[in-house]
Amino acid sequence: MDDKKYREIITFKNEPKITLTSSIVGPKEGSGPLGEYFHNVLSDDKMDEKTFEKAERNLLSFVLDEISTGLKNEGDRLKLIVGGDLLNQLTTTSFAAREMHVPLLGLYSACSTMSEALLVGSVFVDGGYSDNAVACSVSHFSSAERQYRFPLEQGTQRPPVSQWTVTGAGACLIKRSDGAYPKITRALVGEVEDYGIIDVNNMGAAMAPAAMSTLVRFFEETNESPQNYDMILTGDLGVLGSEILCELTKDRGYDISSVHKDTGVMIYENAPQKFQGGSGAGCSASVLSSYIYKALVGGEIKRMLFLATGALLSTTSSQQGESIPGISHLVEIEGVINK
Amino acid sequence: MDDKKYREIITFKNEPKITLTSSIVGPKEGSGPLGEYFHNVLSDDKMDEKTFEKAERNLLSFVLDEISTGLKNEGDRLKLIVGGDLLNQLTTTSFAAREMHVPLLGLYSACSTMSEALLVGSVFVDGGYSDNAVACSVSHFSSAERQYRFPLEQGTQRPPVSQWTVTGAGACLIKRSDGAYPKITRALVGEVEDYGIIDVNNMGAAMAPAAMSTLVRFFEETNESPQNYDMILTGDLGVLGSEILCELTKDRGYDISSVHKDTGVMIYENAPQKFQGGSGAGCSASVLSSYIYKALVGGEIKRMLFLATGALLSTTSSQQGESIPGISHLVEIEGVINK
Repeated sequence: MDDKKYREIITFKNEPKITLTSSIVGPKEGSGPLGEYFHNVLSDDKMDEKTFEKAERNLLSFVLDEISTGLKNEGDRLKLIVGGDLLNQLTTTSFAAREMHVPLLGLYSACSTMSEALLVGSVFVDGGYSDNAVACSVSHFSSAERQYRFPLEQGTQRPPVSQWTVTGAGACLIKRSDGAYPKITRALVGEVEDYGIIDVNNMGAAMAPAAMSTLVRFFEETNESPQNYDMILTGDLGVLGSEILCELTKDRGYDISSVHKDTGVMIYENAPQKFQGGSGAGCSASVLSSYIYKALVGGEIKRMLFLATGALLSTTSSQQGESIPGISHLVEIEGVINK
Repeated sequence: MDDKKYREIITFKNEPKITLTSSIVGPKEGSGPLGEYFHNVLSDDKMDEKTFEKAERNLLSFVLDEISTGLKNEGDRLKLIVGGDLLNQLTTTSFAAREMHVPLLGLYSACSTMSEALLVGSVFVDGGYSDNAVACSVSHFSSAERQYRFPLEQGTQRPPVSQWTVTGAGACLIKRSDGAYPKITRALVGEVEDYGIIDVNNMGAAMAPAAMSTLVRFFEETNESPQNYDMILTGDLGVLGSEILCELTKDRGYDISSVHKDTGVMIYENAPQKFQGGSGAGCSASVLSSYIYKALVGGEIKRMLFLATGALLSTTSSQQGESIPGISHLVEIEGVINK
């Protein structure tokens, strides 16, 4: 690991801030413990559309429209969309962007998309390459089940280690501002890690090593420790994956158990049929843009690390016997402290 | 279009340069007119692997290894991979990156990936967010046919407007340097355009409006004209798509016909069974990293625009009756002039 002694941490000198967020979720997510924090909760997760794919697209369009409208009300205009989704060829994001005539940087990082989007958007805004950027991500339970597992109509039973793809979207507007908003201070691009997990129903175990790897790289290079943060928030490791992450990280000398939270665990806490918790690119995106953002604005969270976690498999790679690589990008966020 | 009067062009102040490239192609591409320019030509496009997906991964690993080795020989280390491919969930790129332990930013922009990768990589390097970055993309005829159309074993006939997915990969190393290398000077992120094309075998027609839109936005904001460039290079519009682009652009007041080239047309020129030409994310990546790079280094091309073009459809979106949106990101490159 000696050849790793290179600067890899990204430090933002111009304090890009998250000045506006939007979130929307389905009825199951809305009835969970974070229900009151989401900007919008659907009563019908098909949204009167003919296909779940169209409903998923509506979710993303909805949050992008709210961000765009917020900017228009300030006499400004959205300049860049940075984001992605889980559907093949990123059709949700592309079709949502088609309606908007705003430049689009499509990303694919599975369920780690929201932290990759925040990282890339912050680089563009911090460096003056774009006046603003919206980082966004989305997923839908029913379209994800159809694409990755089985169509709902088949009524397949789910194994106990499986997770539940969140129906939801979240968007964070990043721009430079003098206002009292949460700011993105540092970031670290994830490396692909693979511990040889081949069970496609056990994503948490496949993704935990990636989160550990990025966290440890961050701590080692910055000399920070878990105690310097109010929260270390992963995306959708679920109950089992979270335990694995805490153990793996402890083995490397960092005990994160007292500050670690996982949006996949939080979103369905105490709900029936939650299995290992929520997953999907929209899970961390919707929770970060609502409950977490409110805590950052209110100063309850003064300093946090956000690491959405992605499992980089496809149905083809699994059928061909490949194990599941994971990735996790990290973003450091500071809450509004002087309030 | 009045609300578009915002600065959207990205200007690179620190002259990020393409200091090293690598390319590899299959036998069909190697026997074409650009054959002698590719760094490597395969005799067997399955590369002795069990699946075409593994062969595709090998293509990308091959060019990434060459870049990585080149850096190591200078006592340096690859810091960031920026790129993508056409396979679902970006498995080619993720699995290739897994072997390397280098941070990965996965992008999806269909066949426009190479210009998105150059743009994003240049932003990271220009702004000092990464010491270097490799922009890369790849495609494989046989894996693309299986995923998007029909398995080869089925022996389906191809309609005359169809294109041929290039088996190939290309990689460009971007870093700041005092040396005499081609430099990336400006860039523009593409918007999603959709003229309602629904024929999945006629990608050129679906993508041409996106290239036109980005080009015209670039000319309007910079006051440049086609005559200021030695070459305006699109990715894989093919013969028909190139004609459509030239006409659409002329309608908007810019005649690019004398300087326009398309890597999809170039790669199979005069070959049998070329149909409308080459396509695929590896088409523009491999041609840019070989033939074009050589002309930039030699000063034959002093100033060019590179716009890879992507069709943002999926098999699901087509089956659901959706039209095909396109996108095209633009990068301005200057050759080595004082030679």
